[in-house]
Amino acid sequence: MFSSDADASRTSKSARTRALLRDTALRSFRERGYDATTMRGIASEAGVSVGNAYYHFATKNDLVQELYLDVQERHREAATPVLGDTDDLVERIGAVYRTGLAELAPYHPYAPEFVSAALSPRSEISPLSDASSPAREITTALFAHAVTGARRGGLPDDLAAALPGALFLGHLLLALFWAYDTSPQQERTARLLDRGLALLRVTLPLARLPLARGVVRELLDLIAEAGR
Amino acid sequence: MFSSDADASRTSKSARTRALLRDTALRSFRERGYDATTMRGIASEAGVSVGNAYYHFATKNDLVQELYLDVQERHREAATPVLGDTDDLVERIGAVYRTGLAELAPYHPYAPEFVSAALSPRSEISPLSDASSPAREITTALFAHAVTGARRGGLPDDLAAALPGALFLGHLLLALFWAYDTSPQQERTARLLDRGLALLRVTLPLARLPLARGVVRELLDLIAEAGR
Repeated sequence: MFSSDADASRTSKSARTRALLRDTALRSFRERGYDATTMRGIASEAGVSVGNAYYHFATKNDLVQELYLDVQERHREAATPVLGDTDDLVERIGAVYRTGLAELAPYHPYAPEFVSAALSPRSEISPLSDASSPAREITTALFAHAVTGARRGGLPDDLAAALPGALFLGHLLLALFWAYDTSPQQERTARLLDRGLALLRVTLPLARLPLARGVVRELLDLIAEAGR
Repeated sequence: MFSSDADASRTSKSARTRALLRDTALRSFRERGYDATTMRGIASEAGVSVGNAYYHFATKNDLVQELYLDVQERHREAATPVLGDTDDLVERIGAVYRTGLAELAPYHPYAPEFVSAALSPRSEISPLSDASSPAREITTALFAHAVTGARRGGLPDDLAAALPGALFLGHLLLALFWAYDTSPQQERTARLLDRGLALLRVTLPLARLPLARGVVRELLDLIAEAGR
């Protein structure tokens, strides 16, 4: 229940070492690529003993997973208050996407290397891997919260249940577009998102029509399945 | 205008060497990754002198570009007769996607490595790179042919002009899904395509309504822009 000063100091020293190792790893991923980066190399560049580096992160994959988790926790912290401000479905979905992009922004210079490594058959850092499921669950829970908390523009239960999985995959595709978006402040990504949300505003009401509802439902299920 | 027998024999020997180098490169990409594969290594494994290998392909990138071009030329050959059989817009779009997947099928074991390398900041083999534009133009021309040749289910001119670019990006996303689809014969990809086409059949007529038309048009333009 109570931490002594010595405990607090140990914790903060440990947090600083972890942050140092992460920053060094990010730089190395960008400079020489994910495959060519090793835990030994990271330790040596960070001026940390190899034993100490392995104590904090047994593998490169662990290090990346902590980074994913950290970004998604900050995403949740940034999105939650904004979701308190509106009960409109499309505005709530937009809030989750926009805060997500804002939290990713500092990582833009590293993004193409991450995408490439995440899709490599030799890495476990895919956002759809088992190892990445804690970070993934934060984001899908955010989308679920955005959908279930909507009062205006809400959807029938079956569509509302299938939507968060599809929105999560939309988030991955948006992040993919963003990673290669070289426009100033990634303004093309912001525009793509705005247009996508405008289209969602027009089409979501149509999805309630009996004609379209079944097809939309099946497509949402299938898209969500792609993210499993 | 006329080739002598000696010319023909040289051509066929040259074609065999190029095919051997390509097959060897594919195997090496899969076994050790794109980055770790070198032209020297390919030559040595193929039993071809380094000078001869460089004569055929100055770089790994050239070799991959020939492969892209080859697959897309076979895609055009497979799609064109099918497009002669139907004047329905959605059936025509489906024919281009289905023949495209069929031509890709033999490369499925190599696909994740290709996707990863194509998205790496260290390679030029992205399907959206300048180097890949000849292969890309074959595919976008196929989609344009599918759209302009439709009699039933046709679209207003502005939507018809914007659609092929969006369909091409759909093709890349479908190929991305397919690359990581481990279901037997990639049946999940086939199902995703079927559902997507069913949704297109329901929604394309709606895109003609004044309410939706402007938004759809803007989205198509923006999606097509993402592929440039």
